[in-house]
Amino acid sequence: MYTKAFLYDFTTMVFMKMGCSEADAGIIADVFLAAESRGHPSHGMIRLRDYFELWKAGRINMNPDIRIVHESPSTAVVNGDNAVGMIPARRSMEIAIEKARAAGTGWVATFNSNHFGIAGYYSMMALSRDMIGICLTNANPLVAPTFSVSRLLGTNPIAVAVPALHQPPLIADFATTPVARGKLAIAEKKGEKVAFGFVQDKDGNPSDDPAILKSGGSMLTLGGDRLHGSHKGYCLSALVDIFSALLSGANFGPFVPPSVAYLPILEKKTGEGTGHFFGAMRIDAFQPANAFKAKMDEWIATFRSAKTATGEERVIIPGDPEREAEERTSREGIAIVPAVRNDLKAIAAELGLEFE
Amino acid sequence: MYTKAFLYDFTTMVFMKMGCSEADAGIIADVFLAAESRGHPSHGMIRLRDYFELWKAGRINMNPDIRIVHESPSTAVVNGDNAVGMIPARRSMEIAIEKARAAGTGWVATFNSNHFGIAGYYSMMALSRDMIGICLTNANPLVAPTFSVSRLLGTNPIAVAVPALHQPPLIADFATTPVARGKLAIAEKKGEKVAFGFVQDKDGNPSDDPAILKSGGSMLTLGGDRLHGSHKGYCLSALVDIFSALLSGANFGPFVPPSVAYLPILEKKTGEGTGHFFGAMRIDAFQPANAFKAKMDEWIATFRSAKTATGEERVIIPGDPEREAEERTSREGIAIVPAVRNDLKAIAAELGLEFE
Repeated sequence: MYTKAFLYDFTTMVFMKMGCSEADAGIIADVFLAAESRGHPSHGMIRLRDYFELWKAGRINMNPDIRIVHESPSTAVVNGDNAVGMIPARRSMEIAIEKARAAGTGWVATFNSNHFGIAGYYSMMALSRDMIGICLTNANPLVAPTFSVSRLLGTNPIAVAVPALHQPPLIADFATTPVARGKLAIAEKKGEKVAFGFVQDKDGNPSDDPAILKSGGSMLTLGGDRLHGSHKGYCLSALVDIFSALLSGANFGPFVPPSVAYLPILEKKTGEGTGHFFGAMRIDAFQPANAFKAKMDEWIATFRSAKTATGEERVIIPGDPEREAEERTSREGIAIVPAVRNDLKAIAAELGLEFE
Repeated sequence: MYTKAFLYDFTTMVFMKMGCSEADAGIIADVFLAAESRGHPSHGMIRLRDYFELWKAGRINMNPDIRIVHESPSTAVVNGDNAVGMIPARRSMEIAIEKARAAGTGWVATFNSNHFGIAGYYSMMALSRDMIGICLTNANPLVAPTFSVSRLLGTNPIAVAVPALHQPPLIADFATTPVARGKLAIAEKKGEKVAFGFVQDKDGNPSDDPAILKSGGSMLTLGGDRLHGSHKGYCLSALVDIFSALLSGANFGPFVPPSVAYLPILEKKTGEGTGHFFGAMRIDAFQPANAFKAKMDEWIATFRSAKTATGEERVIIPGDPEREAEERTSREGIAIVPAVRNDLKAIAAELGLEFE
């Protein structure tokens, strides 16, 4: 078990060794540790190697000049300057919040960026300002639209954070696929099958093989198949792609650059880098903030006290599992699995650092 | 078969007989006919009886004063004055478009409204202005959150319209459930079973009985069950409810008033009427409009030419089926099933009109 502070310091030092400013390295570490402490290790320390390898390959910019290239009272387009995604993402969400202060809402589309960790992190930045926060991003193509076997879309997440008064905030943060890519990878490593409805083979036949992505298979959109509404998951994923890439000037769908160095840079480009989309809505641009937040308390209490299905213990409010993970990890520490620990040791050694 | 013009005139006259102004009646008829011509008769002429009965019961206001009650540069809250939903919805989307002209984007939350027909209609109003249009609404509670059997949510649709250049626009318009309520009703009338994953019984057991809603059952959210991501459909439906009701001041979730007169008015209120949420984003607040629209053409062409799964003929772009229905109905006319025809004849007779 590791403390959050230890892993934060280590991650900060790693990114400083790679050339980041201390401030930037701290932001990156903060997002890494948010993933770990909120129970999403798939977006935490395991990803350090990916950024490290991209840096060694000279494919990512450690001294970026993040800048607004176009704006209106409630919008901006931000050039991420090929930075580690957390840096332009955090800056873009700050701009959305600044815009919302003046205009009621703020909307920022960001291009020329990279993988930014957990989307929920940026949406949550709005909460302390009494705003609703929104964050979307496109991602490496692994997902086929309904009726297709072509990998044209990423797992394209949607994150929305809504403040409450005495209740904890409602925080929805989910991929637009039935299951996260990371869960397939874990099943594959264990040699286990997965449920039908997550992946298909290269011809579009249902599959329960999590390794099928290596032989031309693809992930399915939320809904699974057409009968069960996969075309709605396809709509969601498509909209996330269009907002993130086409409003910003990033690559769309199949042209999103790989977030790992072992995959080659794509030949065709339809824009610059990966794209994100951020929103901030000032609550009091609609309702008095405290009245709205009290109503959110009532909403949450209504849903939390709903009747459970037989065999279920409780009805969950979006964000409950992550908050409980945060309480648990702050008490017990953060576990790092042996394979990741070995990765971190190797990275530390290469950079002249230590990791035990 | 009926022509669109005939049904439009009839619907306009019906609403004028109920006391609407000619302009308002025309707007309502336009939304009804958009549903019919775009292949969604579940939101078309079949609904005329519901509004007629609400009017007879004195539960809906035919001479509304739709007004902005709060605003910021990019937002407004609109009081729908208990009107037929199409009137405040159309006005609210116009306000969102006006706000977007000045501020880059416009966002309007509307309370004290009623059922407004198809959400896609309002999102499409943005297209001719080179804007992206967004429309959400809450609806009568039929849907249970993950792990629950309580009917706390509506089928809460999401509609987004994105303009293209030479290609037709992308128009996503979908309920946040695997299947629409109307499809269950049709299966029930035919005495057919439905697929598992759409509904559950009063204890939360899987069911294939479309009539289960009459014996304490509930609809499931997109994803179907927890394993296949129903918690993501629950997040979507919850967010639609919160944006539509809590930002506007309408009733949330289980307290949304019935859109039919045969159900009693609920005792508890958490706001006024049904709630909607509208958005308009000026494309050129982000990118030059024509460059964006040309990129949308490229996006659409990429997805349309994707490799199909075995046995599938083509990959569909959101909006394709509705556009094709529009072409078909404008050529062949609009079919009205006997039960609805009889309803319309009866309504016509009561109002001193004719329907053949």
